Amino acid sequence: MYQSAIQNLINRLSRLPSIGPKTAERLVFYLLKRPPEELDQLATAIINAKNAVKVCPSCFNFSESIPCPICSDPRRDHSMICVVSKPQDIASLEKTGSFPGVYHVLGGNINPLENSFPEDLRINQLLMRIKNHNVREIILALNPDMEGETTSLFLINTLKQNPEINITKLARGLPMGADVEYADEVTLENALRGRQKINLN
Amino acid sequence: MYQSAIQNLINRLSRLPSIGPKTAERLVFYLLKRPPEELDQLATAIINAKNAVKVCPSCFNFSESIPCPICSDPRRDHSMICVVSKPQDIASLEKTGSFPGVYHVLGGNINPLENSFPEDLRINQLLMRIKNHNVREIILALNPDMEGETTSLFLINTLKQNPEINITKLARGLPMGADVEYADEVTLENALRGRQKINLN
Repeated sequence: MYQSAIQNLINRLSRLPSIGPKTAERLVFYLLKRPPEELDQLATAIINAKNAVKVCPSCFNFSESIPCPICSDPRRDHSMICVVSKPQDIASLEKTGSFPGVYHVLGGNINPLENSFPEDLRINQLLMRIKNHNVREIILALNPDMEGETTSLFLINTLKQNPEINITKLARGLPMGADVEYADEVTLENALRGRQKINLN
Repeated sequence: MYQSAIQNLINRLSRLPSIGPKTAERLVFYLLKRPPEELDQLATAIINAKNAVKVCPSCFNFSESIPCPICSDPRRDHSMICVVSKPQDIASLEKTGSFPGVYHVLGGNINPLENSFPEDLRINQLLMRIKNHNVREIILALNPDMEGETTSLFLINTLKQNPEINITKLARGLPMGADVEYADEVTLENALRGRQKINLN
């Protein structure tokens, strides 16, 4: 329908996640109305990201330096490894500013329906890190859903051969701003089971 | 939070319409996992679109040739001009394959709340086209909403000084697949008012 340069950009953009053909069309027409410098800058930002971003060989987070700033920071506690499924999860956890340890990106979850098996995840690399460093605690920070739970269970079974390591997982309970009335049963059950003592001093 | 090349691309992408910071983040992490050629191709597609796409000086549609393929097509009826607010509307109308005339892109609607006034639209250019060519019909194809109606009314008032021109607008009624039970009153009223005689032969 459109001429080739427009259609080509629409096609490229509509391959991106959460962007359908109609959104791609809207993006392209938005871009065409912007000053040409902005399009140059966007194209340059893509090329720069491609060239600058590498994968940290220790934690497998994306990074512009090797090892990544977290793994190379001597103030971080390298005996605590927080296991996440994807790099974005690290960004969210870092925003809390309350985790002193380091991370390990699995690169997904176990999900046989989508052909994702334990050998597709960076589990061996995690075991190597444990073997080569003095690791005290592994914090499982996987999503509270079917795939995350399956992956956690698999990791717990694999890791329990190292009895000197504490295995923990993120607390389950009511999220901030939730309404008890509308919370689902599993969340409420987790919130009850994990109830915390209030200090009355 | 992120390092500079990643954060810069997130910032650039989150300026695009319908892409918030979270979607931009997801897009960037998706892109970083793709083969590097794909990022090159996306950047190239943006640059190519920027370089190849111009604005047709006659109808103001985006085009890679000047005048655009529609304006330069001798088989199109140049005495019928369909007035649209944006280039995407032309693409949708062309998909029907049932309009033999040419187009005119206003470049928006009259919307004083968003500082869009008649002088910001390509109304003078439309009047020039009418003056210089033998125009028989102007079809108003603006959206059936407040801004579209305001713009249509303004155009009707401006154009009625040329009594030789038929001014028409797109039919109003039930959209395909609609349910009479759930149609809003204005749509139903329009559908009733514009009811069409069924030919019983």
